[in-house]
Amino acid sequence: MTIERELFVSAPGKVILHGEHAVVHGKMALAVGLNLRTFIRMRPRKDDTVLINLPNIGTKLRWDIAQLQTLLPSFQDDPQKLEILKNFAGIIEGCKDTESLAVLAFLYLYLSICGRDLPSVDIVVWSQLPTGAGLGSSAAYCVCLAAALLTYCGRIDDPMCDETTILRWSQTELDLINQLAFQGEKVIHGNPSGVDNAVGTWGGALQYQSGSITPMERIPVLHILLTNTKVPRSTKVLVAGVKEKLLKFPDIMEPVLSSIHAVSQECQRVLKEMTAGLSMDHYTVLEELIDINQHHLNVIGVGHSSLETICQVTKSHGLHSKLTGAGGGGCAITLLRTDTDHAVVETVKQELTNYGFQCWETSIGALGVSVHLPSSLTEDVREAFSNL
Amino acid sequence: MTIERELFVSAPGKVILHGEHAVVHGKMALAVGLNLRTFIRMRPRKDDTVLINLPNIGTKLRWDIAQLQTLLPSFQDDPQKLEILKNFAGIIEGCKDTESLAVLAFLYLYLSICGRDLPSVDIVVWSQLPTGAGLGSSAAYCVCLAAALLTYCGRIDDPMCDETTILRWSQTELDLINQLAFQGEKVIHGNPSGVDNAVGTWGGALQYQSGSITPMERIPVLHILLTNTKVPRSTKVLVAGVKEKLLKFPDIMEPVLSSIHAVSQECQRVLKEMTAGLSMDHYTVLEELIDINQHHLNVIGVGHSSLETICQVTKSHGLHSKLTGAGGGGCAITLLRTDTDHAVVETVKQELTNYGFQCWETSIGALGVSVHLPSSLTEDVREAFSNL
Repeated sequence: MTIERELFVSAPGKVILHGEHAVVHGKMALAVGLNLRTFIRMRPRKDDTVLINLPNIGTKLRWDIAQLQTLLPSFQDDPQKLEILKNFAGIIEGCKDTESLAVLAFLYLYLSICGRDLPSVDIVVWSQLPTGAGLGSSAAYCVCLAAALLTYCGRIDDPMCDETTILRWSQTELDLINQLAFQGEKVIHGNPSGVDNAVGTWGGALQYQSGSITPMERIPVLHILLTNTKVPRSTKVLVAGVKEKLLKFPDIMEPVLSSIHAVSQECQRVLKEMTAGLSMDHYTVLEELIDINQHHLNVIGVGHSSLETICQVTKSHGLHSKLTGAGGGGCAITLLRTDTDHAVVETVKQELTNYGFQCWETSIGALGVSVHLPSSLTEDVREAFSNL
Repeated sequence: MTIERELFVSAPGKVILHGEHAVVHGKMALAVGLNLRTFIRMRPRKDDTVLINLPNIGTKLRWDIAQLQTLLPSFQDDPQKLEILKNFAGIIEGCKDTESLAVLAFLYLYLSICGRDLPSVDIVVWSQLPTGAGLGSSAAYCVCLAAALLTYCGRIDDPMCDETTILRWSQTELDLINQLAFQGEKVIHGNPSGVDNAVGTWGGALQYQSGSITPMERIPVLHILLTNTKVPRSTKVLVAGVKEKLLKFPDIMEPVLSSIHAVSQECQRVLKEMTAGLSMDHYTVLEELIDINQHHLNVIGVGHSSLETICQVTKSHGLHSKLTGAGGGGCAITLLRTDTDHAVVETVKQELTNYGFQCWETSIGALGVSVHLPSSLTEDVREAFSNL
C-alpha cells in the first residue's frame, strides 16, 4: 500500500572524529553524524512515469513505469542485475562519474524496494554536503532513498501517521533502511565499510573497529567549523603511504596507532560524561585530544600544508582543529565551545575563506534519518526545493 | 711534577639529538658532542698567585697560593668542604648566579686535583657556548678545568709530549677527567645526570638510559644549524608538565614515549650505518625522524610557538628541525645535508635572525676534550684570547 502525500526525509553526513587510518590497522574509529544533510522530497504522480531530479549534480531523468516494469523479472533473480541496470540506463562499463553512479543506485533501490507494484513518483534529492569530500554524501543519498521508498511503499511505517511520534522509525525499521542503504552504497563504492550509511541512519556517534559497528547510546551535539581545503587527494594513495611507513618504521609507528586508539577511547569516555552534565573542562580535554591526534596524523604521513594552515589560523584564535577522513588535503574540523564568541567564529571563517577554503558552521552528533513536516524545514532547505 | 708551558684545552658542548624528556621515564636518549666549544688556556706564573679570568661572564679573580693553602687540611677530609669554599669565596648560602657557581667549581677542582702542591697559574676560560641554554656549557667548563689541571699537575700525560699522538688522552685518563668534571658539575647543579660531562669528555654520541651512559664507537660528523630562541623556560616546570600529561592520559602518552624510544634507536642504527658509507637516503631517514620526534614533543606538551616558527621557516627551505633539550623555548637543531646549498643556509640564518633568534652553523658528533697547539687554533679563538 503506497502513501498518497508528499514525503520529506533527510539524512546527515558523516565525519570521522578520531581514528581515521588507524581503523585500517584494527584500531577504533569514532564516526559522528554531521548536520549537513541530504534531503529527499517524494511526490505521487498520476502519469505512470518516474522522475528523478538531482540539482547538485545537474541530473534530471524520467522513465515510463512500463519500461521499468520490463526489468523486474530478470532483475529480481539475476546475479548480474547490476549489469542489466547499466545496460538499461546506457551506462558504459567502468564509468564512475557521480551522475552514472547516482542513477544506478537509484534504479537499484527503486526496483529492489518497490518490487512488483512500481509507484509513479517525482523525486528530488538536494544536499548541503559537497560530494567527494569524504563527508558521506553518497551514503546520505542512499539512506534518504531507502527510507523514502520503503515508507512510500508501505514496507515501513510512515512516522507522520502518528502525531505524537518524534518523526522517527523503530529500531527494526532503521535496520532495514540501513541494510538497503548499504546495498546502494555497494552499487556506488564496490566495497564500502558500512560506516557511512550507519551514521546516515542512526546519526549520533558510532564506534567502528575490525568491521564491527557499535552506535553510542547518546552523545552531546557539538558545534564545529567544517572546512574543505578543496585540495584533491587519493584515499587509496594515502592509505598505502601509511602502510609503507608502518613497514619502514614498525617500532616507531605501531605505538602511534596505539596512541590514536587511546585518543578515540578517551574521546568516547568524555562524550559519555558530557551527556550527564557538560563542563568547560570537557571541552578542554576534547581540544587536547584534537591537537594530539592532528600531530599523530602528521607523523603517519597524512598531513598537508593546507591543513596546517587551518590549524594555525584557528589556533591563533584559540580554536583547535584536526583533519578528518583521509587527510592529505580534504576536510578539517574545528571544535567550537558553547562559549566561543560568535565574532571569533566569523573572523576565522573569513580568514579561512580568504585562503580559498570553504567553511560551514555546523554541528556533529546530528540526528539520523528523519521525516520532516514541510512546515518545519529551515528557510534554506525550503528555498532550495521551491523551484524544483 | 707540573708542566712549565702554556696549555690549551677545549671541550665540546652537547645537544640531545633524540629522547629528551622520554629519558626521564626510562627511555633512551641520544646525546651528541656539539662543536661549539669551551677553551681553556693555562699559563705558569712566578708570583705565587692564581688568576682566573672568565670573559663570557665578566669575572676576573686572583688569590694568593698561601691563602688557598690554608684551606687544604680541612678541605680534603671535611664532608662540609663545599661550605668551607663558599665561606672562603664569600658566596652567600643559596646563591646560584653563574659567577658564584663557576668560581666555586673552579676552587673545588683546583684544590681536589692539585692537592698539596698548588701551582701558580693564570687561567682563562672562554666559550663559544651560550650559558643556560641547555647546551652543556657548565660541563664543558668543568671538563676543560679538570683536563687542564690534571695535565698541568702531571696526574695525566701531556699529549703534546709525544708529537705522534693525535693530542688526545688514553681511555683511563679520559675516565679520570670525566670523573672529576662530574664532581665539578655536582658543585654547579647539585644532582646532574652525568651526560653533559660525558659528552664533553668523549664527544661523538652517547646513549643514555636509566642512569647508564654508553658512548657509541663512531658517528659521522653532521652539519647543523643550532638556533637559540632565547625564550626562557624552566626545565623543572616542563618535566613536571610531561609527568602530569602522563598521569592524565596514560594510554595515550605511554605509546608516544615508546615511539620516541624507537626513534632514538632507529637514529642510532642509521648513524652507525653512515660511518660505513654515507648516502642521501640516510639523510632522508634522519629528517623523517626529526619530524616525527618534533610532533611527539608537541604531543607531550613541550613545544612552543617560537620552535614552531623555526620548524616552519626551515621547512619552507626544505630543511627539518626539532627542539633539543627541555623545549618550551630554548634551542632547536636543523639538519644540514652535505649537499645543502650554502646560499639556502645563509637565507635561513637571516630569516631566523630577523625573528630575534641566535643562529650558529656548526656540527654535531664533535671531538671530545682535546689539547691544542696554539698555532692550530682557529682565527676566532685566537682573537678571543689575544687580549686576555
